Amino acid sequence: MHRTYASRIATSALHRTAWWQRGALAALLALAAAWATPLAAEDGHALWLRYPPLAEQAQGTPAPVTGLVAAAGTPTQAATRQELLRGLGGLQGTAPPLADAVGRPGALLVGTPDSTPALAQLRPALEGLGREGYLIRSVEIDGHAATAIVANDDIGALYGAFHYLRLLQTGEPVDALDLRSAPEVRLRVLNHWDNLDRHVERGYAGQSIWDWHRLPGWVDPRYTDYARANASIGINGTVLNNVNANAMVLTPMYLEKVAALAEVFRPWGIRVYLSARFSAPVEIGGLETADPLDPAVRRWWRAKADEIYARIPDFGGFLVKANSEGQPGPQDYGRSHADGANMLAEALAPHDGIAMWRAFVYSDEEPDDRAKQAYTEFVPHDGEFADNVLVQVKNGAIDFQPREPFHPLFGAMPQTPLMMEFQVTKEYLGFATHLVYLGPMWEEVLRADTHAEGEGSTVAKVIDGSLHGHALTGIAGVANIGTDRNWSGSHFDQANWYAYGRLAWDPHASARDIAGEWVRMTFSRDPDFVGPVVDMMMDSHQAAVDYMTPLGLHHLMGRGHHYGPGPWVEGGPRADWTSVYFHRATRDGIGFDRTASGSDAVSQYAPPVAREFGDLARVPEDFLLWFHHVPWDHPARSGRPLWDELVHRYDRGVAAVREMRATWAGLAGQVDAERHAQVAAFLAIQAQEAQWWRDASIAYFQTFAQRPLPEGHAPPPQPLEHYQGQEFPHAPGDGR
Amino acid sequence: MHRTYASRIATSALHRTAWWQRGALAALLALAAAWATPLAAEDGHALWLRYPPLAEQAQGTPAPVTGLVAAAGTPTQAATRQELLRGLGGLQGTAPPLADAVGRPGALLVGTPDSTPALAQLRPALEGLGREGYLIRSVEIDGHAATAIVANDDIGALYGAFHYLRLLQTGEPVDALDLRSAPEVRLRVLNHWDNLDRHVERGYAGQSIWDWHRLPGWVDPRYTDYARANASIGINGTVLNNVNANAMVLTPMYLEKVAALAEVFRPWGIRVYLSARFSAPVEIGGLETADPLDPAVRRWWRAKADEIYARIPDFGGFLVKANSEGQPGPQDYGRSHADGANMLAEALAPHDGIAMWRAFVYSDEEPDDRAKQAYTEFVPHDGEFADNVLVQVKNGAIDFQPREPFHPLFGAMPQTPLMMEFQVTKEYLGFATHLVYLGPMWEEVLRADTHAEGEGSTVAKVIDGSLHGHALTGIAGVANIGTDRNWSGSHFDQANWYAYGRLAWDPHASARDIAGEWVRMTFSRDPDFVGPVVDMMMDSHQAAVDYMTPLGLHHLMGRGHHYGPGPWVEGGPRADWTSVYFHRATRDGIGFDRTASGSDAVSQYAPPVAREFGDLARVPEDFLLWFHHVPWDHPARSGRPLWDELVHRYDRGVAAVREMRATWAGLAGQVDAERHAQVAAFLAIQAQEAQWWRDASIAYFQTFAQRPLPEGHAPPPQPLEHYQGQEFPHAPGDGR
Repeated sequence: MHRTYASRIATSALHRTAWWQRGALAALLALAAAWATPLAAEDGHALWLRYPPLAEQAQGTPAPVTGLVAAAGTPTQAATRQELLRGLGGLQGTAPPLADAVGRPGALLVGTPDSTPALAQLRPALEGLGREGYLIRSVEIDGHAATAIVANDDIGALYGAFHYLRLLQTGEPVDALDLRSAPEVRLRVLNHWDNLDRHVERGYAGQSIWDWHRLPGWVDPRYTDYARANASIGINGTVLNNVNANAMVLTPMYLEKVAALAEVFRPWGIRVYLSARFSAPVEIGGLETADPLDPAVRRWWRAKADEIYARIPDFGGFLVKANSEGQPGPQDYGRSHADGANMLAEALAPHDGIAMWRAFVYSDEEPDDRAKQAYTEFVPHDGEFADNVLVQVKNGAIDFQPREPFHPLFGAMPQTPLMMEFQVTKEYLGFATHLVYLGPMWEEVLRADTHAEGEGSTVAKVIDGSLHGHALTGIAGVANIGTDRNWSGSHFDQANWYAYGRLAWDPHASARDIAGEWVRMTFSRDPDFVGPVVDMMMDSHQAAVDYMTPLGLHHLMGRGHHYGPGPWVEGGPRADWTSVYFHRATRDGIGFDRTASGSDAVSQYAPPVAREFGDLARVPEDFLLWFHHVPWDHPARSGRPLWDELVHRYDRGVAAVREMRATWAGLAGQVDAERHAQVAAFLAIQAQEAQWWRDASIAYFQTFAQRPLPEGHAPPPQPLEHYQGQEFPHAPGDGR
Repeated sequence: MHRTYASRIATSALHRTAWWQRGALAALLALAAAWATPLAAEDGHALWLRYPPLAEQAQGTPAPVTGLVAAAGTPTQAATRQELLRGLGGLQGTAPPLADAVGRPGALLVGTPDSTPALAQLRPALEGLGREGYLIRSVEIDGHAATAIVANDDIGALYGAFHYLRLLQTGEPVDALDLRSAPEVRLRVLNHWDNLDRHVERGYAGQSIWDWHRLPGWVDPRYTDYARANASIGINGTVLNNVNANAMVLTPMYLEKVAALAEVFRPWGIRVYLSARFSAPVEIGGLETADPLDPAVRRWWRAKADEIYARIPDFGGFLVKANSEGQPGPQDYGRSHADGANMLAEALAPHDGIAMWRAFVYSDEEPDDRAKQAYTEFVPHDGEFADNVLVQVKNGAIDFQPREPFHPLFGAMPQTPLMMEFQVTKEYLGFATHLVYLGPMWEEVLRADTHAEGEGSTVAKVIDGSLHGHALTGIAGVANIGTDRNWSGSHFDQANWYAYGRLAWDPHASARDIAGEWVRMTFSRDPDFVGPVVDMMMDSHQAAVDYMTPLGLHHLMGRGHHYGPGPWVEGGPRADWTSVYFHRATRDGIGFDRTASGSDAVSQYAPPVAREFGDLARVPEDFLLWFHHVPWDHPARSGRPLWDELVHRYDRGVAAVREMRATWAGLAGQVDAERHAQVAAFLAIQAQEAQWWRDASIAYFQTFAQRPLPEGHAPPPQPLEHYQGQEFPHAPGDGR
């Protein structure tokens, strides 16, 4: 067949070939290199649920599952069966056949004593595991060796199935198992700071995954993947919208959309919650007040709760940010936080819903140290909160800084269940480009000893309810999830989502162990890979602290977006939104005096802690400038004068990133080229930005310290004005 | 190995199992259905470059390519070779071996006479093909049958390679080829209305794909896929930022990022352009004026152009929206559009750059019919524009309405090259959820006869330069591309990107042929699938016109976001941003009188056209109410009174969508379940919204017509107030 197209001459004075072919050879060569690698490109979308063939892994292949006994009579059972078929299908090459009974060795049975009669013999062993716990045991059934995953409830069996798949993925032996696990914390939720227009406050991974506009007509399959990923690490709740809330989410149009999401999440054990705007009765209810003691307001919230539960019978409850950073709240009407929380609790109680009331509050009119205000406002109300209220407390008293001492509220409200709020998204820790594994930071906080009930009164024991005997317990993580293909914006930020879930299940777990699990599932089980990568992750938090805010410095980021260094930030609407408020550098010294001679924030801690933090000789050096204003020549524990120590720490942070780059470069070929290249590019950005942080901070603080740089430490390449003049109005994740 | 986890009872008064398991069975059953389908799930990311194995296709498999002779001495050659290896590797199962010479039958040779000596014999046949054209011919080389893809320049060979791959993908025979093709239009560009914060104005496919914040450190591989897709359809330029421009894109920080993108695009024949904010000399240049006749301003733009070209030697030029909808422009200084455009042209000329100056202008102070203003402002300046200026004209005189008569500027500025601006993104056509193939709409405009130089003076001939002898020609499409996995937000919107590129290459091409190509490459070559889907696509535009704005109605969408019906929109900052300005419905009739008795907009067309449009008896009924104010009982050509005809058309549109749903439902199994499900869900949304358009519009216009609905047509189920009360503040794509 002959075809002829009309042709036309495109003479081209404007198209000059010479430039056309320049400079892209490098990019093509990189592609050619990718071509040669034996590992197929991966985009990270599968998270830690990749289920690659075990045969391709470096280590011993476990005996395959020869048959699967799994009921599918309920949505959660069906989800469990489906996940096992998917996981085993990937890991073993083919999915095992489904069976009703055990006919040969190697069967895997999953279910409850009720769903699966063959598991009924294990009923006594389930005592104490609750609804979400499970048992995984190597057993003999009808004369054949088999593995049982059994729980009191479907959801426990699902969690057990994910545990079993994790064992296979991480290369653990599965031939002689006897595991019991149940969550230490009851409500393990993600907080999405997602606006209804899909902007994510402090989001660095694209838009909100909630496609509100097209819900409920379009239910993206991604919602199911989200639920699977969360269920795999035990997360059982999600607050869909930003704590800086829009009341519109409580209108029927949006509740219909919320219900569609709840429907997707339900089989995976995940309840939906909503951030409730305190002034909603005025904004969407047509009332003239939102006073929590006003009967009409209370009626409105009760009716609203009834309306929600009619659509979503397992709705989790409300999260509220009130009287903080401009949000409305009960204090607008002269009422207390307890008044506000209890009003919502009353509306939710008939439905067994929970009110989560944030303690992240500080008043513009309050002249006191911002670090003290939450304690001051909340402690007097201990004992006043309703039974279905949790007070949600950030890990530290300022705002998710690279490192903060534990919040003084922990241990200080024995009659109130406090839930932890961690920030999984890295607002102050380099956004999605910096490799900062948050496990060690969270572990540090959870293991901190409040001394509230004597030695050993760790924050973890506050959170898990054991310290003060609370059955209602919770933990929240501000999500780092968005529409980016890899969910978190970077491959390594997936580890923070993962670690959050694992620590929520067990706040006493080890951050290093969790990193090891994650690396094995996400990248490779090769010990030559796992070892250096876990080390790099474990060191990464200290590195970021060093190059951003060493020695207890805090809140020094660029204004608003928090991108890059801004120690010079001053002025604006409020003092405690500036950097100078926090570092207090002068010619005489640097640091915020929070001892008795200063704001006396230390006195909010239990006496043994207060004494340690308040004592210049005993305060952990990582919190030195958090609690003390110190002269520039104060001798650090290294023997160096403070200024020299500060410079030393900045450079230590920069050097650590350089080492991370070298480590990762040396691992090329052990991970697919696509993911390797992105991590390498991000590490290069991190190295550049660590240097920038170091240079700008030193240039700025030197104007106070008036000292030369110690020997061997190069001066910043640019004058201070250069760093101060840089503007980034389009940095992502701002608070609009 | 035995492991024991600490266990803890999660007693759960709050976790009630009963609700936990409700309602999600349907979702899981759907997943199970997907399991059973023989076609692997696809997410649409590969666009029309899927390259599935030919053996799995329904029709005859062409003889495989047995060897590939392709140089790789330049980036474009390397890209060409790589694409052929990728494409043939997918289509044939394995990539053919690379060879230096033809040693057996079945070789494919690609290149220029210079790059590939075996192709030198074809040099004479290349005459007239220009830089971008190519020849594909079945030849005999060294006694063996072979196929030659040959061009004068690397880029032509790349285009030829994509053409050859398209032949294989669409199932065309490739054993006796003799094809010539060269583009009819020289500059074939996409306009991205992408803001620097990644918001896309009129974007319905996620965020901007330009990750400005992380550029140049992170060069997303997606940029290469973008370039490949565009090159495959002949697009050779891209304007990266919104015409409502931010001057900051012209600062060094952003130019470094722009240069990184240009580097990626260069091998694929794609130049970058930028939207230039006219007031940039003031905003980032520190000048006190942006007066185009001010010498300092002219110097500033020359220096800026020099700076850009130093970084990007093949930079394409500037696109400018000036003195339109609040944008700054030369009229702020009492200068003309020609003064403004020529100043930029002067700065670009030394580098062979192009200034694209938009004619989408209308003044707030101008009391005249908005449809007339561009003509009024521009025609007097015909002949004044510099040689490297293109005036960019939207297809119609209002604003990308579902259907508009061709813009009266086409044919009316013989001394000025006019480029077409089409909108690929569906701002006024149902966003990404409605299935509306724009090929027929564009074809209708391109084939419209301006009569500027007598009969046959089609818009296409204006655009391709042939009507008035312009060598500089161009066409622009406002992109529908975002970060959504499938690029366009919906699978069928990929067809609009594809069709735009194909029509830009050849404005005389057939929309139906293009749809056929696209369906074969994107979904299936099975004629039982292709036929109904192409028919559905071809009918889809008329359907949308019918259920939104029948009979020439226009500009009746919700205010601002343009989502859904808003025929009642009135008031606000300007009359011509309301609906009532355009439909002019009264008790007496409906429509905008643009005849001599009204605004006389018809007189802007050449006399034969003006006579047709101005004559109530001859005007195409699709433009009836565009040009005429007509009584409610005016007899339509069907014989029905106008009111009845209006209702009939609304219902015809709704019925057409219903048919589309049925057609698609009947094709389940012929396309993978993942894509089938999304299209089906979107069609369900479209059906619902078509009904909403119809109901709300009829409820509103009935208040004027004061007539009952004709027999067989149901009244709107809700009172008008219901429709008027609906608000959608978070609808995507607003103009912020």
